[in-house]
Amino acid sequence: MESAGQVIKCKAAVTWGKNAPFSIEEIEVAPPKAHEVRIKMIATGICRSDHHSIEGKFSSVKFPVIVGHEGVGIVESIGEGVKDIKPGDKVIPLVTPQCGQCQCCKDPRANRCLTIKLERQYGLMADGTSRFTCRGKQIYHFLNTSTFTEYTVVEEIAVAKIDDTATMDSVCLIGCAFSTGYGSVINTAKVHPGSTCVIFGLGGIGLAVIMGCKIAGAGRIIGVDVNPDKFDKAKELGATECINPKDYDKPVAQVIVEQTGGGVDYAFECVGHAETMLAALHSSHFAYGTTVIIGVSASTLSFDPMILLSGRTLKSSMLGGWKSKDSVPKLVSDYLAKKFDLEKLVTHRLPFQKIDEGFDLLLSGKCIRTILTFKAVD
Amino acid sequence: MESAGQVIKCKAAVTWGKNAPFSIEEIEVAPPKAHEVRIKMIATGICRSDHHSIEGKFSSVKFPVIVGHEGVGIVESIGEGVKDIKPGDKVIPLVTPQCGQCQCCKDPRANRCLTIKLERQYGLMADGTSRFTCRGKQIYHFLNTSTFTEYTVVEEIAVAKIDDTATMDSVCLIGCAFSTGYGSVINTAKVHPGSTCVIFGLGGIGLAVIMGCKIAGAGRIIGVDVNPDKFDKAKELGATECINPKDYDKPVAQVIVEQTGGGVDYAFECVGHAETMLAALHSSHFAYGTTVIIGVSASTLSFDPMILLSGRTLKSSMLGGWKSKDSVPKLVSDYLAKKFDLEKLVTHRLPFQKIDEGFDLLLSGKCIRTILTFKAVD
Repeated sequence: MESAGQVIKCKAAVTWGKNAPFSIEEIEVAPPKAHEVRIKMIATGICRSDHHSIEGKFSSVKFPVIVGHEGVGIVESIGEGVKDIKPGDKVIPLVTPQCGQCQCCKDPRANRCLTIKLERQYGLMADGTSRFTCRGKQIYHFLNTSTFTEYTVVEEIAVAKIDDTATMDSVCLIGCAFSTGYGSVINTAKVHPGSTCVIFGLGGIGLAVIMGCKIAGAGRIIGVDVNPDKFDKAKELGATECINPKDYDKPVAQVIVEQTGGGVDYAFECVGHAETMLAALHSSHFAYGTTVIIGVSASTLSFDPMILLSGRTLKSSMLGGWKSKDSVPKLVSDYLAKKFDLEKLVTHRLPFQKIDEGFDLLLSGKCIRTILTFKAVD
Repeated sequence: MESAGQVIKCKAAVTWGKNAPFSIEEIEVAPPKAHEVRIKMIATGICRSDHHSIEGKFSSVKFPVIVGHEGVGIVESIGEGVKDIKPGDKVIPLVTPQCGQCQCCKDPRANRCLTIKLERQYGLMADGTSRFTCRGKQIYHFLNTSTFTEYTVVEEIAVAKIDDTATMDSVCLIGCAFSTGYGSVINTAKVHPGSTCVIFGLGGIGLAVIMGCKIAGAGRIIGVDVNPDKFDKAKELGATECINPKDYDKPVAQVIVEQTGGGVDYAFECVGHAETMLAALHSSHFAYGTTVIIGVSASTLSFDPMILLSGRTLKSSMLGGWKSKDSVPKLVSDYLAKKFDLEKLVTHRLPFQKIDEGFDLLLSGKCIRTILTFKAVD
C-alpha cells in the first residue's frame, strides 16, 4: 500500500466535529508536495492539549481534524526541494517549526517561527490544501503535526531528523511534554543551582519540570498536586517534598511562602487553570520570584498588578523556548547519553487503535503519559 | 527653634483624612530615637503616588498623615547608634530602605528590604510611635520618608548620604521619579543597545524611562501619550517618535506592532491603568517582548494568559530595582558627572506653602515635576 509519490491509504483517528469521539477511519494521505515530508508514524504520546483541542477550547482548530502532536516516525517520502531529510530518516514532527530565516528564528531570544502563521498551524499546508482525505472529505491538519494517523505529512521546517539509534518510542516525548517542561526550567526560568522551585501539577509536564529542576541543580523542588498518588513518582524524579493543598486550611501559596522563608525562586504552573497560576504567582518570592506559566488555558487571569511591583516576574514560553529544529536532535542525544530518562514519564502503552482507552486514562488522571504505538501497516 | 535632642516646631502639610485638603500646620517633630535621623528638608518633588495616597487608593495609608516621599535635605540630628551619617550631611530619604542584613538586602536580585515591613512603611517608626504631633494628635509617617514637612524623621536604613556638592534641589528626583524610571530600564528590563522601546505615559517617570532608554543605547524610543503637548519634551530627552492613540481608529498596540515589524523589545507602562498595561503587553513582541509595569495602580489586570505563552515576559519593580542605600549616592554622582540632566524633568518650582498649587499642576497635567522648596526656618 505504501509508495512514495502515490496516495497512501491508512488508518487514522479522525475527529469529525467538536467533542466528537475519535473515529478510526481509513484515510487517504496525499504525497508530500514541495518542501513537505511524509512520515510513517512509530508512536505518539497523548497530551492534554489534544483533548482541549477536540473539546473546542482553541478556536483556531478546524474540524474535521486529525489531532495528536507528540510523535516519532520514519520518513516515507519527501517532496521537491527538501534538503537534509531523506526517506528512512528517523524524525520528530515539530509543533513549533523553525525555518531558520525569519526574524524570530534569527533572534536568540525567540522560538516562534513566523513562517507558519498561527492560524495556518491549525488547518492547511502552505498551498492552502490538506494532505488528508476521508470519505471524500478534506480533513484538517493540526499544529503542523497530526500524529494520530499511521501516516502524516508535515512541512520540512516542522520536522527534525534525530539519531537513528533512538529506538525507544518514548523519544516522542521530546516532541512536546518533556521539552516543554525541561525547557521551561532551562531556557525560560533559567533555574540556578541551589534555588527553590515549586511545581503546580504533577502530570507529564510537571514531572518534566521536576526532572529539569534536578538537572539544573535546584536545592529544593516542591511538587504540588491535589492527587497524592502522584507524589511517589514526583519524588522519584527529583522532588524533595510534596504538598497536597487539600491538607491545609489556608491557601497553598501561603503554605509555600511559610515553608520557604518568604517564597520560592521559581514557580511553575503546569495545570492550565487561572487559580493555580495565581497560586504559583503568590508562592513566588515577592522581591525576586519568577513564575512560569506552562499550562495552556483559555481562561482569564486576573490579579492586582501590585503583586508584581515588589519585583516578581511572570513569563511563559512554547515548547520550553527551544528552537525546535536545532534543539530536538540535541535533546535526543542527551536522552541517549542518559542525561534524563523519558521512560519514567511513560506509564502506559497501547496500540494506536485503543486511542479511546488512552484518553480515558488521561482524563482519569491515572496515567502520566500514554504512548500509542503503530504496527507496521505494509 | 532648631535644636538637636529637642522637639522642633515647624510647618508641615498635614492630611487629616482621606481626600482632605493639605493643611499647613505647625507640628512638633520629636528628636530622633536610636537608629533614627532627623532631617531639615531642602526640597521635595510632588509625585502622583502622593495623590493616590491621600485619595485613599492605598489601603495601608493611615490618617492623619504627612505624605511626600521624594526629598532632599540636611541631617539636623541623629539618634543613638547611627553610623555613617552625621549632622550636616546632605541626604535623600529612601522609600525603599536597605538594611544590608536581611535576606533581600543580601540577594543581588532584590531591593525590597525586609526590615521595614510594608505595613510599617505606612505609619509608625520601629518603636511603634510617631515623631510627628499636631494639635495634640499623633500624625502618621508615610513610606519611610514624609517629606511634606520642614523637618522629618526617618530610620537610619532609610536615608542615603549623598555628595555635598549636589546643590541642585532637583537631586530630590533621585529619591523617586528618576530612579524608578531609569532603574526600570537598566535593572528591570535590562534594555540592550539597538533595541526598540515604547513608553506609555510621558509624565516624570515616563520621561525618566526615555532618558534611561537613551543612555542604554536603544535604537528606537517610542513615546505614547494622549496629550501631544508632552511630545516635544519626550523628543528632547530621547524619544525618536511619539504616538497619540487618539490619532488612530485602531488600538494603539496594533499601531505599534505594525510600526515596529511585530512589536517592541521592551514596553514600559508609566500610567498605572489596567488598560495601558494591556496595551503595553500587546505592543511587546509576541515571541520575546518584555513589559515592565511601573505605574502604581489599585485596579485589576485581566488578560488571557495565552498572551504570554508565545514568549512574553511581564514584570515590575519598586524604585527601579535599585538597592537604595548603595545606589542613590552613585546616581547622584552620575548626575554630577552629567550622565543625565534632572533639570529637564523639572518644570515648576514653588515654595512649600504653595503645595496646593503644585498638586493642581500635577492633576492638570501641565507639569512634569514640580519641586517644592523650603526656606530656612531658623
